[in-house]
Amino acid sequence: MSQQQDTSRRLRLGMVGGGQGAFIGGVHRMAARLDDHYELVAGAFASDADRSRASAAELHVAPDRAYPDYRAMAEEESQRDDGIDVVAIVTPNHVHFEVAKTFLEAGIHVICDKPMTTTLEEARTLAELVERSGRFFGLTHNYTGYSLVRQAREMVANGELGELRVIQVEYPQDWLSTRLEDSGVKQAEWRTDPKRSGPAGCLGDIGTHAYNLVRFVTGLEPQALAADLHTFVEGRALDDNVHMMLRFKGGARGMLWSSQVSPGNENGLRLRVYGSRGGLEWCQEEPNRLVHSPLGEPPRTLTRNGPDLGAAALTAARIPPGHPEGYLEAFAQLYSDFAEQIRARENGREPEALATGTPGVADGVDGLVFITRALESSSAGGIWVDF
Amino acid sequence: MSQQQDTSRRLRLGMVGGGQGAFIGGVHRMAARLDDHYELVAGAFASDADRSRASAAELHVAPDRAYPDYRAMAEEESQRDDGIDVVAIVTPNHVHFEVAKTFLEAGIHVICDKPMTTTLEEARTLAELVERSGRFFGLTHNYTGYSLVRQAREMVANGELGELRVIQVEYPQDWLSTRLEDSGVKQAEWRTDPKRSGPAGCLGDIGTHAYNLVRFVTGLEPQALAADLHTFVEGRALDDNVHMMLRFKGGARGMLWSSQVSPGNENGLRLRVYGSRGGLEWCQEEPNRLVHSPLGEPPRTLTRNGPDLGAAALTAARIPPGHPEGYLEAFAQLYSDFAEQIRARENGREPEALATGTPGVADGVDGLVFITRALESSSAGGIWVDF
Amino acid sequence: MSQQQDTSRRLRLGMVGGGQGAFIGGVHRMAARLDDHYELVAGAFASDADRSRASAAELHVAPDRAYPDYRAMAEEESQRDDGIDVVAIVTPNHVHFEVAKTFLEAGIHVICDKPMTTTLEEARTLAELVERSGRFFGLTHNYTGYSLVRQAREMVANGELGELRVIQVEYPQDWLSTRLEDSGVKQAEWRTDPKRSGPAGCLGDIGTHAYNLVRFVTGLEPQALAADLHTFVEGRALDDNVHMMLRFKGGARGMLWSSQVSPGNENGLRLRVYGSRGGLEWCQEEPNRLVHSPLGEPPRTLTRNGPDLGAAALTAARIPPGHPEGYLEAFAQLYSDFAEQIRARENGREPEALATGTPGVADGVDGLVFITRALESSSAGGIWVDF
Amino acid sequence: MSQQQDTSRRLRLGMVGGGQGAFIGGVHRMAARLDDHYELVAGAFASDADRSRASAAELHVAPDRAYPDYRAMAEEESQRDDGIDVVAIVTPNHVHFEVAKTFLEAGIHVICDKPMTTTLEEARTLAELVERSGRFFGLTHNYTGYSLVRQAREMVANGELGELRVIQVEYPQDWLSTRLEDSGVKQAEWRTDPKRSGPAGCLGDIGTHAYNLVRFVTGLEPQALAADLHTFVEGRALDDNVHMMLRFKGGARGMLWSSQVSPGNENGLRLRVYGSRGGLEWCQEEPNRLVHSPLGEPPRTLTRNGPDLGAAALTAARIPPGHPEGYLEAFAQLYSDFAEQIRARENGREPEALATGTPGVADGVDGLVFITRALESSSAGGIWVDF
Repeated sequence: MSQQQDTSRRLRLGMVGGGQGAFIGGVHRMAARLDDHYELVAGAFASDADRSRASAAELHVAPDRAYPDYRAMAEEESQRDDGIDVVAIVTPNHVHFEVAKTFLEAGIHVICDKPMTTTLEEARTLAELVERSGRFFGLTHNYTGYSLVRQAREMVANGELGELRVIQVEYPQDWLSTRLEDSGVKQAEWRTDPKRSGPAGCLGDIGTHAYNLVRFVTGLEPQALAADLHTFVEGRALDDNVHMMLRFKGGARGMLWSSQVSPGNENGLRLRVYGSRGGLEWCQEEPNRLVHSPLGEPPRTLTRNGPDLGAAALTAARIPPGHPEGYLEAFAQLYSDFAEQIRARENGREPEALATGTPGVADGVDGLVFITRALESSSAGGIWVDF
Repeated sequence: MSQQQDTSRRLRLGMVGGGQGAFIGGVHRMAARLDDHYELVAGAFASDADRSRASAAELHVAPDRAYPDYRAMAEEESQRDDGIDVVAIVTPNHVHFEVAKTFLEAGIHVICDKPMTTTLEEARTLAELVERSGRFFGLTHNYTGYSLVRQAREMVANGELGELRVIQVEYPQDWLSTRLEDSGVKQAEWRTDPKRSGPAGCLGDIGTHAYNLVRFVTGLEPQALAADLHTFVEGRALDDNVHMMLRFKGGARGMLWSSQVSPGNENGLRLRVYGSRGGLEWCQEEPNRLVHSPLGEPPRTLTRNGPDLGAAALTAARIPPGHPEGYLEAFAQLYSDFAEQIRARENGREPEALATGTPGVADGVDGLVFITRALESSSAGGIWVDF
Repeated sequence: MSQQQDTSRRLRLGMVGGGQGAFIGGVHRMAARLDDHYELVAGAFASDADRSRASAAELHVAPDRAYPDYRAMAEEESQRDDGIDVVAIVTPNHVHFEVAKTFLEAGIHVICDKPMTTTLEEARTLAELVERSGRFFGLTHNYTGYSLVRQAREMVANGELGELRVIQVEYPQDWLSTRLEDSGVKQAEWRTDPKRSGPAGCLGDIGTHAYNLVRFVTGLEPQALAADLHTFVEGRALDDNVHMMLRFKGGARGMLWSSQVSPGNENGLRLRVYGSRGGLEWCQEEPNRLVHSPLGEPPRTLTRNGPDLGAAALTAARIPPGHPEGYLEAFAQLYSDFAEQIRARENGREPEALATGTPGVADGVDGLVFITRALESSSAGGIWVDF
Repeated sequence: MSQQQDTSRRLRLGMVGGGQGAFIGGVHRMAARLDDHYELVAGAFASDADRSRASAAELHVAPDRAYPDYRAMAEEESQRDDGIDVVAIVTPNHVHFEVAKTFLEAGIHVICDKPMTTTLEEARTLAELVERSGRFFGLTHNYTGYSLVRQAREMVANGELGELRVIQVEYPQDWLSTRLEDSGVKQAEWRTDPKRSGPAGCLGDIGTHAYNLVRFVTGLEPQALAADLHTFVEGRALDDNVHMMLRFKGGARGMLWSSQVSPGNENGLRLRVYGSRGGLEWCQEEPNRLVHSPLGEPPRTLTRNGPDLGAAALTAARIPPGHPEGYLEAFAQLYSDFAEQIRARENGREPEALATGTPGVADGVDGLVFITRALESSSAGGIWVDF
């Protein structure tokens, strides 16, 4: 059921970051493999040359393409005939900007993890760079790859909910309920370290996903927010819980909660959208169901690849209803859509319409505006701040 | 499994309001009957004498005790040997105060629906009246009667969640998504009419229930709130959606959402409480389950009358686990606990400890403080306001 | 939303069984009180006169109507001007027959717990007695009182599922997973004792409920069954687990599982009905939802008193959707429907149509046929046996 | 968290079947790619040479390794230095045997879809062939690849449920509720065609999955069964609904239901296992949760990669709890475990213990015994038949 794509050859993928012990790099690689549009051929997997080579060996990457650092990689790969088409940036946040800049300037397409940068200034600079470079830039707000998230977006766009009124989004976790960053857990270390994560903790790590999901599904423009960030775990340098109220242009109102200190929650990203004609509810932990409640009628449970779905959802599903797809499939969907956009760009054609609309550099800037405004609001005591 | 009570005779119950066509009056009567501690013997069921008598006839109340108005009822009943012990006030909000005052002054115990009054001033006056009268005053924040709500309260009090950090409470409905108040639906009419409901719409009707539930379960004292009230349905005089952030003394933070315009929600009251050692989740629509997530362990689903419950929960359950109890049973629990407190007071003894802790006049004042602060915050643009 | 009823006075109710320490008697009393169609005025609550009187005192029954035995009660009550209209029989199974016979012969209507008798012969004799007596006989297969069970029945009758094909019903519990009958638990003692329960254990106690629910909802006539009864707990005299395959007239096929030894199950009665045009699923532990899956469309979740329900369901609901009703309300619904049928009979009028269709003596006979055939099948090794 | 494996090079994979328009072939390919242990290098994707080549082109398989038929493929690949290590057989059932035989005889390892063959005789012959060949044979009963299915198996093996008593397994679908086989749907055509599917319809297609899951998780040996197969859709040649009772050695009893005509069910495979000390419940449509009910304690919800899991489950998970894995990941797990077993065999070493225990030729024979006995029972009217 995936869209037809120009499949004459796989795209050649490079990776920066994602060496042994990393988490998100492995996810990107599985995502890139699943639909078979990429082959991983080069990498600067770690800042240490030996560790980079060791990772390369495990990943079936040729030793001469396991680079000691990303600058060398960008330079050499851009000069090979069989050089990489695209690089995936899966480092901690603070490195995103420089790496992206380097590869764009070397003429190489970029897929970048989120948040895009650690400052709004960098984000805006990067947006200009992307514009000038003419290269593709994809941002892995991966939850937008779920089939039923796309169904929700299509239904809102089609007016099936009427005029939007209330948006409830939340993303609770519990893994940082204690000082895990002191226990040698690498993921916890850098995510709670302002030097590597930037000034936002929970806000930047998962609050941005929640915000992006609202924007993707509803298309609403934010007008103002009031944020109450808090750090519950003593000694932690960054926020670990985010409460926020939002006002959108046109009159809709919203609430956003993200937390890393709420026991019993794993990755409880949940979006509820209510309009004058109906409501929608979707939970990331049960992503194969979307509940649609037309006003005055019984709720209907839409299932991935099941009855009554639109083209956007059907295109983003692989297997029959009742056989669950999950996080990796959603991530893979972004990679597949990116591939289509890259190929179209290389071939001077329009991409398939349903493969577009994926998060890009503008969403990266939007995410940094969101982070910046939320930090401003919270540090001023939780006042309302305009976007 | 209900607590042992002095059951020498049923308490004689009168009612003000609750005539034909009303909703909550019928609920109070079923609640009063279920555990057999009351008999309804008098009433001013409607302001119209004929309608009051017609209701009385249906309710097996003697014609001479179907009063034309509540003042006459208070006077006559207080002089009969077999006069009512207690009156239930189930009128629209704006009448609560005068009726309560009248019966208290006549020496009759009072059970009153919520919100207690329409102004904070009235609430405080009533609190003084109750104090002076020496009479019992119960407020039907009925969700506190659920067995597993009491379990949650006991677990928090016992420190099973550790230090409280995050409180999420919500109460979404959808029944006022359109201008139902223009369709002759009596319940919608008075609830959206400031003259009868007071200055708070959704906030007063269900936001107060959500707030009360937080206070009941957590025991936390509020310190400040920021509220964003909104009216989505054009032409409606009162708020129909409430967003709120809360800060509690001691450092916990909270969010509260109540809505009457969110399609697909019936009475979706849901409380989640997170502390340093664990989390709890309870939903009113599935009240026979309470999910307890000890930090670092799999979530456990506690069931009403099932394993591992404390005395508070077991005392507030009637039938074996797996046979659901619902809204009426929770409401009846309040009535049974009120009966125990009234009897203890009449007999000059201490009530059973587990029958105490039910909402009373102080909670009524607290609710009006909450409403008042939320209205202040919202009308000032959503700023933070101290309690 | 309950049906209008002739409410000139409450029906006078007597009870046999249900003294201190009993379970189902208290349920019957709450059920009788809830909708206010009955007042309990007499009882032979226990075989011991003192205990019967002690129970009467607790239940506000006059001492002179606390009878030493049920025969005296039937005789005296039938001669009083204000004698009972109807008796509720809530004893262990083996006593049902004699008590019912006695009251019917005294001209008193009967409400009887299930299974109706312990032998098919008694059941058939009782059916004749009822017929001859002209008295009302109601059997408390209480799950038929749930609002959404009636919705399911109406939908099947209206052909919304098309031609029925597959019936799956189950009723698992876990409370008899160990030899609870040796621990002084009265409920466990008599239910595992052939002398008091009859020859069927789990089969008679809850298997009959499952079977009755199928019959009530689908209207299908059974043709044959193959049953595999088993006793897992060593030393127990009766079956504690029932597996069964069923064939119905017209071609539908079914499976029935009931168990008292399946840990994690409380009262997990669940019915699924599938036809050529759609499916239905209902679970007793979440009785306020009924999932309807029209073939080729997304499943729709019907809620009690919510949108798209028929008259049968709406008539059997008390409070708005989202405020759960439970086991006691369903039980009360039977009592209310019985009251309407008794009053209609007394007044020589037709009862309200929606109050009829409740289980009666024919269902009691049907239940004993079911038990008898299942025992025959199982004792012959699980062979198919015709009804 | 996948087990460490010898990853010096990817295994070279060939495929028979799975050309354009097929379903399960694509699943096998995604499964083979996900964990990066295979590269697809050859195939007889379709019986038509042009269609096989067209598929090969799409799949990045070199044209000279797109074979016109599988015999040529086996011959040529077995003689190449870089010939395939293993072949995946993803044809309709009736072809499995001959293809498997051909590749085994050519010295090539085999991964085969289920049911293994269409007759018990073929199955037994194949088992001998596998034994003689010394080649690896993996059978894709893919549900055994789910992380929490392995947890269930480990818990049963560790005695956490005590002595097993009751097994409930079901696999309902609805996609064949009408004569879809007449609408040109290829999947429906061959699955309802005895020539291609063998003598079992629903029984062979999904009943075998249910049976295999019971065997995998519980380790119980079947003793006897009574089966009631039925065809509800007129004109269909094979069964579309299966009811079955089972008796296991040692005394446990079970029920099995599989259906393709039950509206509202997609792939509702569900297993419940009850023992003297506890119960387990797992549903394929929400595979990231396993409910464990220790007798007398609240149920605990185990989550994939969450707290309290054993090594078997942790080894079969890729990403953190709360990020769902699904059907493809479970399928991939089998492929990864097969890879480890193949590599170990090639290297003359023992495979990692946790990668063993996957379904193989003995399970294929067991599945055919199951099918054969069920057909015998049903055609004799549903009598009990020994295994």
